[in-house]
Amino acid sequence: MISKKMEGFVKNSSAIRAMFEEGQKMAAVYGKENVYDFSLGNPNVPAPPAVNESMISILRSDPAVMVHGYMNNAGYEDVRTAIAENLNERFGMHYDAECLIMTVGAAGGMNVIMKTLLNPGDEAVTFSPYFGEYRSYVGNYDGVLVESPVDGVTFQPDPDALAERITDRTRVLIINSPNNPTGVVYTEESIRAVAAVLEKKQQEFGHEIYIFSDEPYRELVYGDTAVPYIPKFYRNTIVGYSYSKSLSLPGERIGYVAMSRDIDDYENVYSAAKTANRILGFVNAPSLQQRAIAGCLGEKTDMGYYDRNRRTLYDALTADGFTCVHPDGAFYLWMKTPEPDEKAFCARAKEKRILVVGGSSFGCSGFVRIAYCVAYETITGSLPGFAELAREYGLC
Amino acid sequence: MISKKMEGFVKNSSAIRAMFEEGQKMAAVYGKENVYDFSLGNPNVPAPPAVNESMISILRSDPAVMVHGYMNNAGYEDVRTAIAENLNERFGMHYDAECLIMTVGAAGGMNVIMKTLLNPGDEAVTFSPYFGEYRSYVGNYDGVLVESPVDGVTFQPDPDALAERITDRTRVLIINSPNNPTGVVYTEESIRAVAAVLEKKQQEFGHEIYIFSDEPYRELVYGDTAVPYIPKFYRNTIVGYSYSKSLSLPGERIGYVAMSRDIDDYENVYSAAKTANRILGFVNAPSLQQRAIAGCLGEKTDMGYYDRNRRTLYDALTADGFTCVHPDGAFYLWMKTPEPDEKAFCARAKEKRILVVGGSSFGCSGFVRIAYCVAYETITGSLPGFAELAREYGLC
Repeated sequence: MISKKMEGFVKNSSAIRAMFEEGQKMAAVYGKENVYDFSLGNPNVPAPPAVNESMISILRSDPAVMVHGYMNNAGYEDVRTAIAENLNERFGMHYDAECLIMTVGAAGGMNVIMKTLLNPGDEAVTFSPYFGEYRSYVGNYDGVLVESPVDGVTFQPDPDALAERITDRTRVLIINSPNNPTGVVYTEESIRAVAAVLEKKQQEFGHEIYIFSDEPYRELVYGDTAVPYIPKFYRNTIVGYSYSKSLSLPGERIGYVAMSRDIDDYENVYSAAKTANRILGFVNAPSLQQRAIAGCLGEKTDMGYYDRNRRTLYDALTADGFTCVHPDGAFYLWMKTPEPDEKAFCARAKEKRILVVGGSSFGCSGFVRIAYCVAYETITGSLPGFAELAREYGLC
Repeated sequence: MISKKMEGFVKNSSAIRAMFEEGQKMAAVYGKENVYDFSLGNPNVPAPPAVNESMISILRSDPAVMVHGYMNNAGYEDVRTAIAENLNERFGMHYDAECLIMTVGAAGGMNVIMKTLLNPGDEAVTFSPYFGEYRSYVGNYDGVLVESPVDGVTFQPDPDALAERITDRTRVLIINSPNNPTGVVYTEESIRAVAAVLEKKQQEFGHEIYIFSDEPYRELVYGDTAVPYIPKFYRNTIVGYSYSKSLSLPGERIGYVAMSRDIDDYENVYSAAKTANRILGFVNAPSLQQRAIAGCLGEKTDMGYYDRNRRTLYDALTADGFTCVHPDGAFYLWMKTPEPDEKAFCARAKEKRILVVGGSSFGCSGFVRIAYCVAYETITGSLPGFAELAREYGLC
């Protein structure tokens, strides 16, 4: 007998994760090299060597009692200071250690902030398509996730659609740019327009509406694409960050939330978030990882690797006749399915041993997400299957 | 504007953590060696050298993409298998990989299980005194924590008191032995009596009542004290474990929950717990730590270190005239305050730069908890202050 609420969560459980586990089973049957698993955002680029070297050096040199011990629930103070200074330098912010809380990845940070902000029935708006786990992260605290569709062509936020969805119960807007699943980076123009809507609504309803900026893909952009730092455009912004993708450490669960001292009700929000971090059972972000990333703030992942995957896949699929959103960031390709029933398309793709996730998982049917953070051989190996699909659908 | 529920959590926030942060401030003023901080269960014994060596070897030899990558939300299958086999060997269980979920410490595991089991208003019973964070872990899911007092002399569970507190809403009994804060190990006789009460109540109410056995201190026992393995005495038991104390890794957040396949509704409970682990934002237990502990299942912490602290402190304080529960496990000494107002006592102790946590934090006023997992010099340094307190209170 499990709780009624968990029954619902299990029923609506992650299709991405189900696909990932299915992919592992298929790999066991057909051989890993014959399964083209694009289901999960699990980086195939190894962590930069400096990250492992940083861990080894800490393990060799620093006192174990400190490295593996409890610290302030917000994280080591020197680590938070180092990150704050790095952000100040890069984005002209005025963060200090008391603006940051080290978290168990971005998912941990988002749960901490949702628990901090949401009363039952409070609304969290997000631009759709969106990472489907947001439904759980908001639902955990009995909040209501409200979807605000983006522009159907550019996949940029639609300020008018947003304005219609903000109510007196709206507590937070969740923004995710570079976006999972579309790979689109929201432009400065978009962010300014969104900020203007929120400023107006804050005045109209007489209470603050926070932005939670979920930024695990901030560093993953191609060419000279700029990712606006949202706190520069909207004061009441809380940033959630993760090193999962930028340093290829998704299993290690290390990230942070950052909030300026000038957000409304800063002291209560910070103090509550720190408490939430403790009582949700995180207690603190993993200690060795905190110390390791503090020494690797200048490290970058190999974007050339992802870029080759991106170009190869995008060029081949569009040449096949598929309609894809051109991705400027992250490592996802968002593709329109050639038949409206995405489930049918996913099933046909699976016959070619190609695993992709249906758009419904991201609140937007008629599309699939292709996570191209895979081995290059997975990309090239999958192309004949994609080409067959295109022919079967009469696209080419 | 934070959520109403978080306002309550912040207000009742951990006195232990507040004391720990106060201790760090005092250390900055008076010097670390002049502050006797017994507030936090933060082991002063370093992790066994094999643990760091295991981490370094993994970082040197294993592929970074695997070591730091996503895996099944329940944890690496080989790690779960290794732990299952170890438990089977030690306790005659029949666990396999699908009986375990690797968790972000015991606190993470307990949140996962409470989310899995509790509907709003459902009751979780625990023996009092108890680790105060249970209030939050149950309250997170709108459950009600019901305190069942232990015997006032032996601090063993009182089966009659327990029977009175089980209702139709009782979903789970939380047991913590070796106990935080008393250091008492519940005997096999106690566990059998508790199991008998629960079996009867399960029949009476016609639904299962689980035990959640919170066991971070299982390995920390003195002399030949035996810690009964509760699943051997009560079928519907879910075990929560942590390597925080047994391998001195509290900051790393690594533990597991284990449930036999023969608990009632196993498939739903396991599946829901795995989902809860994901959606609460843990996603998975830190990956490097999972791999490291799998290679260190035979490692033990230096119990001689804690034992010396225990004997020195217990002998000195009882000689001073204080009344203490003799601890057979964990690293806590539970001491009666010489005046009923424990807050007043804590304040007077603080004047001697001795930091202890009042029993109210553990649901049991008139006592203090002294966490003796500290440097031996902290023990010896504190003794003159304790002796002065004893004299001031006329105990000797």
